[in-house]
Amino acid sequence: MKTHKTIEGARLQHGGNFGPITVSTLAEAEFFADGGFRDITYAVPIAPEKLDRAAALASRIDRLNLLIDSETALRAMERRGFSFEVFLKIDCGYHRAGVSPDSPDSVALARAMLRSTTIRFHGILTHAGHSYHARNADDVRRIAAEEAGCLTRFRALDEELGFLVRSVGSTPTASVVDRFIEVDEVRPGNYIFYDAFQTAIGSCRVEDVAVSVLATVVGSYPERRCAIIDAGALALSKDLGADHIDPDVSYGIVCDLDLSPLPVRLTSVSQEHGKLEGIAHLPVGMKVRVLPNHSCLTAAMFDRYHVIENREVVGEWRPARGW
Amino acid sequence: MKTHKTIEGARLQHGGNFGPITVSTLAEAEFFADGGFRDITYAVPIAPEKLDRAAALASRIDRLNLLIDSETALRAMERRGFSFEVFLKIDCGYHRAGVSPDSPDSVALARAMLRSTTIRFHGILTHAGHSYHARNADDVRRIAAEEAGCLTRFRALDEELGFLVRSVGSTPTASVVDRFIEVDEVRPGNYIFYDAFQTAIGSCRVEDVAVSVLATVVGSYPERRCAIIDAGALALSKDLGADHIDPDVSYGIVCDLDLSPLPVRLTSVSQEHGKLEGIAHLPVGMKVRVLPNHSCLTAAMFDRYHVIENREVVGEWRPARGW
Repeated sequence: MKTHKTIEGARLQHGGNFGPITVSTLAEAEFFADGGFRDITYAVPIAPEKLDRAAALASRIDRLNLLIDSETALRAMERRGFSFEVFLKIDCGYHRAGVSPDSPDSVALARAMLRSTTIRFHGILTHAGHSYHARNADDVRRIAAEEAGCLTRFRALDEELGFLVRSVGSTPTASVVDRFIEVDEVRPGNYIFYDAFQTAIGSCRVEDVAVSVLATVVGSYPERRCAIIDAGALALSKDLGADHIDPDVSYGIVCDLDLSPLPVRLTSVSQEHGKLEGIAHLPVGMKVRVLPNHSCLTAAMFDRYHVIENREVVGEWRPARGW
Repeated sequence: MKTHKTIEGARLQHGGNFGPITVSTLAEAEFFADGGFRDITYAVPIAPEKLDRAAALASRIDRLNLLIDSETALRAMERRGFSFEVFLKIDCGYHRAGVSPDSPDSVALARAMLRSTTIRFHGILTHAGHSYHARNADDVRRIAAEEAGCLTRFRALDEELGFLVRSVGSTPTASVVDRFIEVDEVRPGNYIFYDAFQTAIGSCRVEDVAVSVLATVVGSYPERRCAIIDAGALALSKDLGADHIDPDVSYGIVCDLDLSPLPVRLTSVSQEHGKLEGIAHLPVGMKVRVLPNHSCLTAAMFDRYHVIENREVVGEWRPARGW
């Protein structure tokens, strides 16, 4: 839910039902709990000082799964004395958070979680964030196999671990894999909107991108072959997109109102200005839609979504915000 | 005011008084008008569809200065029929918005603004954003001279333009110039907080940076010499900072709670994770403060500031948001 952070989007993703869902902040978890969702995974290792808030939230829903990847975090939970449901985060190759699936220390931590009389060891979880470094769908398929295989391999290291839920998930892998094997749940997020980055690595087509920023040309400089729109870093974020594939930076795909790409690049963004360069002449007052490089970051800049069907605004969604 | 967007910060900057001020969005202008500020410059070329909102705002304060740099925008204002106060934006070398100070077309536009029976031509305005490309204070001084000189030169092109207010401003130039000559007003913004970028180009010292993001280490991986904090792209922005000076990216200066820099770099940020790499061992639960690369973008991610004096939280400021 971290991409859109709305009740309406979450229910769309679940065919009208209420979860289970995964979130990226405790504030999101509380927001969705208020909205009727009762099975929530908070998929970032929790800061020890947030355990009181987490316990209060867990007490009013069916299940709040937390994430840890250190003995320090386990001890903090035991000191808190609440029977948290806990995932152990495994590093399947992204090398951000998570314990190594091949280290004896990781098995020792898993056994300590099994033996804990305080927490409940629910499962093992990973995120193949390195799928974002892929150059095409074949790269992504290879990483998806690693992502799934790594949890099954870890679980096999000790037969006592065999009951653990295996949770994977990234939008690139979920978008290109026909069928997940060796996993129990999949948690992609970005796919609800997709974005320019996902088109570049082959997760989706440009016409699949479901979120855009409406902007107006406020300056036009044909002699410099450029124009300025009133959407800059605060409207779009400064995410560079898939610059490992296309080093000519554009801060999004610039389209007309019907979402047909225009022959211009958004070559720089400052706080409230976006600079377009290219062959199209864009007059002052013209409106464009920008498909963002990274929809999760762009969406978080706005207090509301205008939902469009057949060129008409048919709804307004209000996202959660903060931490 | 675009850096902090708070009434409290604005009054600090004016010794307790109410302006005049410069803002970057119409929403900010409305927010500060509600807070008692009555002389406001909106320093981004205005989108034609916002002229109704601007007229409503201008009617309830003493002065709302708008910015244009095209005949299209001038015609839109004349069609609106409201006596807007208007700056002509001049490009002094940044090549973002603004007309060339050396083009006959620019003088023709200025004369059309003079002759307009609808708008009031208040002045000429520039922003030396290219001062951010400087490598040291001497570079900045040279750009500051260009910034000021360009407006005086433009005004001299026609004696009828001699009355125009000359408005300049960028934090790098305002920070290193001892005395502005040939200008009537200066509009720096970032200096209220400064940031890691400004330290790199010589605008300020690290100890001058007045805003930081408090974060907690939530993962610690000594075998990989890295740690994860719970502040990522949504807490800090993805601004790369002064990478023209130091290509080894860090998404901010990572400090202890007393704001002494630690020997680690914040080498990558994803939505809610920041990855620290370096020689310091940072245990799970440890708190750090991150001086942001670009305080304007970072500050905009938060709903409030906690104001700290002598290690105590002594106040809470709430910023404007949106457009």
